[in-house]
Amino acid sequence: MDITQLETPVAVVDLDRLAANIRRLQVYLDEHGIANRPHIKTHKIPEIAWMQLRAGATGITCQKIGEAEAMAAAGIQDIFLPYNIIGAAKLERLVRLARRVTLSLTADSVYTVRGLSAAAQEGGVTLPVLVEFDGGLQRCGVQSPAEAAELALVIARSPGLHFGGLMTYPSNARTDPFVRETKALLKVEGVTVNCVSGGGSPEMWHAHTHAEVTEHRAGTYVYGDRHMLESGAMQMEDIAFSVITTVVSRPTAGRGILDGGSKTFSSDLLGLEGHGLILEYPEARFYGMSEEHGHVDFSQCPRKPEIGERVTVIPNHCCVVSNLFNQIVGVRNGKVEVFWPVTARGALQ
Amino acid sequence: MDITQLETPVAVVDLDRLAANIRRLQVYLDEHGIANRPHIKTHKIPEIAWMQLRAGATGITCQKIGEAEAMAAAGIQDIFLPYNIIGAAKLERLVRLARRVTLSLTADSVYTVRGLSAAAQEGGVTLPVLVEFDGGLQRCGVQSPAEAAELALVIARSPGLHFGGLMTYPSNARTDPFVRETKALLKVEGVTVNCVSGGGSPEMWHAHTHAEVTEHRAGTYVYGDRHMLESGAMQMEDIAFSVITTVVSRPTAGRGILDGGSKTFSSDLLGLEGHGLILEYPEARFYGMSEEHGHVDFSQCPRKPEIGERVTVIPNHCCVVSNLFNQIVGVRNGKVEVFWPVTARGALQ
Repeated sequence: MDITQLETPVAVVDLDRLAANIRRLQVYLDEHGIANRPHIKTHKIPEIAWMQLRAGATGITCQKIGEAEAMAAAGIQDIFLPYNIIGAAKLERLVRLARRVTLSLTADSVYTVRGLSAAAQEGGVTLPVLVEFDGGLQRCGVQSPAEAAELALVIARSPGLHFGGLMTYPSNARTDPFVRETKALLKVEGVTVNCVSGGGSPEMWHAHTHAEVTEHRAGTYVYGDRHMLESGAMQMEDIAFSVITTVVSRPTAGRGILDGGSKTFSSDLLGLEGHGLILEYPEARFYGMSEEHGHVDFSQCPRKPEIGERVTVIPNHCCVVSNLFNQIVGVRNGKVEVFWPVTARGALQ
Repeated sequence: MDITQLETPVAVVDLDRLAANIRRLQVYLDEHGIANRPHIKTHKIPEIAWMQLRAGATGITCQKIGEAEAMAAAGIQDIFLPYNIIGAAKLERLVRLARRVTLSLTADSVYTVRGLSAAAQEGGVTLPVLVEFDGGLQRCGVQSPAEAAELALVIARSPGLHFGGLMTYPSNARTDPFVRETKALLKVEGVTVNCVSGGGSPEMWHAHTHAEVTEHRAGTYVYGDRHMLESGAMQMEDIAFSVITTVVSRPTAGRGILDGGSKTFSSDLLGLEGHGLILEYPEARFYGMSEEHGHVDFSQCPRKPEIGERVTVIPNHCCVVSNLFNQIVGVRNGKVEVFWPVTARGALQ
């Protein structure tokens, strides 16, 4: 089947580029002796996770128990879930999962640690738990090395748990100093830090500059998007993910309407202007969206599209776009090779 | 089951409020002799569409063929699809659908009309087609009454098609003058305009002020959201839709992190500040999101939440949020009554 026969809007992945992206990061991390633990939240597709593992990844990272459940169901054995898992129902699912696969977690509070410890004891499993620290993103994470060391000790002393190391996102200039200070505090207590997990796709080629980081988590790098282009970490020829749309209306001389809007592209801007880059019309301005319509200004384009013409959009943020599709179409040289259901999409957190 | 037992993040609908919202709009439109054709893109759930029909709606509105297919599969017989349907595969599905249900469409170009006419002839069906006009939103739609009249004539003369009237979105001050002028132009040609379909939830209580509008399409009104509150068309006690989340981290004195981010709430702002209203903490500022984390500033709240506490969020835009969930939970007086799959979510356009 030719890609021109696919109904639009359709999310397609270039399989050659996908493989190259997976290989390139693996080679780089291998060269620097950094473990690769890709984040599957970008694709949520077990087949792609397996490609990453076969290329040499240590294991995978998931952001929700539901994602981890879907990956475990596909036979994946080593899963890191860097999230504060809270509440009886989720802890029960977690323990069930930990009986089937090697599962590690994070915590940034005694509250989370207590829940994990109680669940692990009741379930008869041992859970490795890493301390999450805030590297400046101001999301989760303990704020200081003193807090990190304190929580590490709480974990180390909690029945059913095992202190698994330190985790942050994204890796940056604060990472090494924070880790060193925490290590020093823990050394006094006789506790060693065996794993330091950093992450981020825009930052991936700098992973080797963080001497303390032993493992890297990147998600977006498999597909690529406009934000990755902007960051400089990927070039246009690396971008494997795009959405093919159809021009369904040309109401004025300059305006064109695509058959994809906020339910196709999401509204993520990530600091960018507009909602995507139209490959065939680089001068076009994708300035607005309704739920199922994309509003584009083609007035600066030398040639303007006809109604019925198909155009290829590189979205701002591929992770939230793949989450809006039931399936992703794998293509090679313009031919459809595979339809992948986005298996873990909408999975319970 | 009590709603406190539901795993978070979970999208819940208050069934009493849902029923009241459906009834209130129906009563109003009935009073003014305006046909009610609710837009199911908000909920994508056949059971709710049936509630709207049983309350007195003429038929429903869908935005994608996939939505219409899902609703037809649930036995719904009268579907309006106000979208330029383009391309062989979609036209084939359209004709298949038109054989099972009463299906009407829109077009804003001769290109769309030609495709519909060819498909209708080949499929042996007659398709009513309305002309879409641009009421100022600058999306699809012909730009002038002259263009509208011209396209209406093309439709009226196209084999397999029937001129179905005029359609716009949203209804506003431009609607009546545009319709009157178009009607005058068509009268000369002996063509009458039997249906004028207007729409919009924020505008719904003004439907009777547009003398020319014979039918109203509203979507968001069934659930309600922060944007509807802002518009003044709904009050807090009307809001039927919310997302229950858990506070999973309290990394600083002021900051709290929820277990829902852009893959739960979408990034739609619709001109609002922040990503949602937290009912239990109205002073909180939901200022940021990652994909699975909501970043909230609780510093202005007299009491601050504990880790593990559940909080209820009214999102900015319910239509894109319901599209991110596999199921919606119907509740009454704090008890779970029903789990509804979001059947048409991710359906092919």
